[in-house]
Amino acid sequence: MAERLTIALDAMGGDHGPDVVVASALEFLRNSKETALILVGKEDAIVQHLGGAAFADRLSVQHASQEVGMDEAPSRALRNKKDSSMRVALDLVKNGKANACVSAGNTGALMATARFVLKMLPLVDRPAIITAVPSVQGQTHMLDLGANVDCTAEHLFQFAVMGSELVTAVSGIEAPKVGLLNIGEEEIKGNEQVKQAHERLVASTLNYIGYVEGDDIYLGGVDLVVSDGFVGNIALKASEGVAKLVRHVLRLGFKRNLLTRFSGLVALPVLKRFGRTVDPRRYNGASLLGLKGIVIKSHGGADRLAFENAIHIAEKEIYCNIPERIAQQVSRQLEAEQQRSTA
Amino acid sequence: MAERLTIALDAMGGDHGPDVVVASALEFLRNSKETALILVGKEDAIVQHLGGAAFADRLSVQHASQEVGMDEAPSRALRNKKDSSMRVALDLVKNGKANACVSAGNTGALMATARFVLKMLPLVDRPAIITAVPSVQGQTHMLDLGANVDCTAEHLFQFAVMGSELVTAVSGIEAPKVGLLNIGEEEIKGNEQVKQAHERLVASTLNYIGYVEGDDIYLGGVDLVVSDGFVGNIALKASEGVAKLVRHVLRLGFKRNLLTRFSGLVALPVLKRFGRTVDPRRYNGASLLGLKGIVIKSHGGADRLAFENAIHIAEKEIYCNIPERIAQQVSRQLEAEQQRSTA
Repeated sequence: MAERLTIALDAMGGDHGPDVVVASALEFLRNSKETALILVGKEDAIVQHLGGAAFADRLSVQHASQEVGMDEAPSRALRNKKDSSMRVALDLVKNGKANACVSAGNTGALMATARFVLKMLPLVDRPAIITAVPSVQGQTHMLDLGANVDCTAEHLFQFAVMGSELVTAVSGIEAPKVGLLNIGEEEIKGNEQVKQAHERLVASTLNYIGYVEGDDIYLGGVDLVVSDGFVGNIALKASEGVAKLVRHVLRLGFKRNLLTRFSGLVALPVLKRFGRTVDPRRYNGASLLGLKGIVIKSHGGADRLAFENAIHIAEKEIYCNIPERIAQQVSRQLEAEQQRSTA
Repeated sequence: MAERLTIALDAMGGDHGPDVVVASALEFLRNSKETALILVGKEDAIVQHLGGAAFADRLSVQHASQEVGMDEAPSRALRNKKDSSMRVALDLVKNGKANACVSAGNTGALMATARFVLKMLPLVDRPAIITAVPSVQGQTHMLDLGANVDCTAEHLFQFAVMGSELVTAVSGIEAPKVGLLNIGEEEIKGNEQVKQAHERLVASTLNYIGYVEGDDIYLGGVDLVVSDGFVGNIALKASEGVAKLVRHVLRLGFKRNLLTRFSGLVALPVLKRFGRTVDPRRYNGASLLGLKGIVIKSHGGADRLAFENAIHIAEKEIYCNIPERIAQQVSRQLEAEQQRSTA
């Protein structure tokens, strides 16, 4: 590993590429005094965006000649883009030149390439994507968010183990309350995989509180919500849709006439504070868990503030040594299961 | 059929039973001058709540000695509760004494009992639950919302056909834009059932616009969003959770100090208007589609306003003759498919 903590940034990924990534990197370096960054991508484009920026000892550029398209098939990216900014950034992690990697690129390609380059942790079948969302009590973590469309009970169980360990590490909660996303709290509901995962979680040493429903994600009674990637992704996106609708309706309401415009001005400090609390940019940066390395996925449409947040998440995971902690926790949980089954 | 349009209400269903149902019924009768109501349930409890209410010619009570518990297994309710308020209300529809039924009771039991009593329309495999939610453009309909946990491509296709016809009937949209809920707009994503349903919808005569994501439900570009019941239920509940979080954060924000309290007072008309626009009570009342009769499911926790809304939805579906329209549309779509496959 590099002596100084180092994060590799896929400078070409996302809807805005180096426009956003370079500006985010410079802002991050202003706010974080220890960590170094490597901007990976087309050198001329990156240098142009850098202008004459300082941070010479903490900022370097690694040229990569290719880019992965946002709609490119993961298998194609993996086969044909061996010098893509995404792939080279992951190689830097693999080779110990960087401690983590952040990309706003194509999720499927990032997942497939990260898995190929970094490999899975022992005993973990699949990577999962986890993120935090705001809740009445503070925040809730959710996984999986789209890495795995069809999941077995074993996968869901592994997600719970990995997610619980991540929440402990980054939030300092000793025994995070883990819930399994289902359509009813009664045990008669739910599909087969969910029911079997429920049985395994009940028998585990995790702080499993049982089934939770979609609204529980935001109500503060649970720290980690586990689901397959199809359901998790749709729950998250539906939530984003409601947030957009709320902003739209509030804006229209305050714009109706002079009186409502005035009341909007008066209420502005409260509305701004409200906006900050539920600002999705403050939650940007989802972790790919289960890999032998730290990989953070930024939203493709992330702006400077949002992408910078994803870099801070990467830094925090380096400090917390997430992959090693997860490897240990997975092995402990599976050993505990074996002991129970032979007891 | 009864000469006067008549709706049977399960007076014992929901978290509040006759407390809410009787008050909603009286308010409905004040607002709607044509339709008659039958309150089904324990006669003494209902009469007590009625007090000396008028509407003698449009309001009657039908005694039923049993109640279905909110957590009771559907199969148990079906077997052991032949004189439940839910079952008797459905029997009234079956026997032509009522044109529709509204219940806030246990969803699973309502679904199983309705299917047993009323039977499915020809060519329809399963009932589906549909509701409207607010969107940037007005409203969007979603189905299925929990009736069907595991769905085949054929089920999803039938849901799309039924839902599209309902939207045309109640919203007057000639060719509703139909979207299939998925985790990405690129064709590489999604699970097997969804991909196969997509192929069938592309080949159909519906106005199918392709895959939509969770946030599209609220952004106004689609009139009907189709998914299996597990995903649909979780998307809807997650949305409710965000709405609760928004209310919580706004309330806290305006309560912080004297200044924010004042700004809240000034902004009150706008905030109230906002509350009305996204008020889930104004959207209460989900239809069970695919049955030989009109059955509306109210939220279990519905209050007077919300339950009354569900009765209005039942009335509208009677006027629109929903079951017959759906039967015709399903048969047209399947004939069109056969012609294509033999052409």
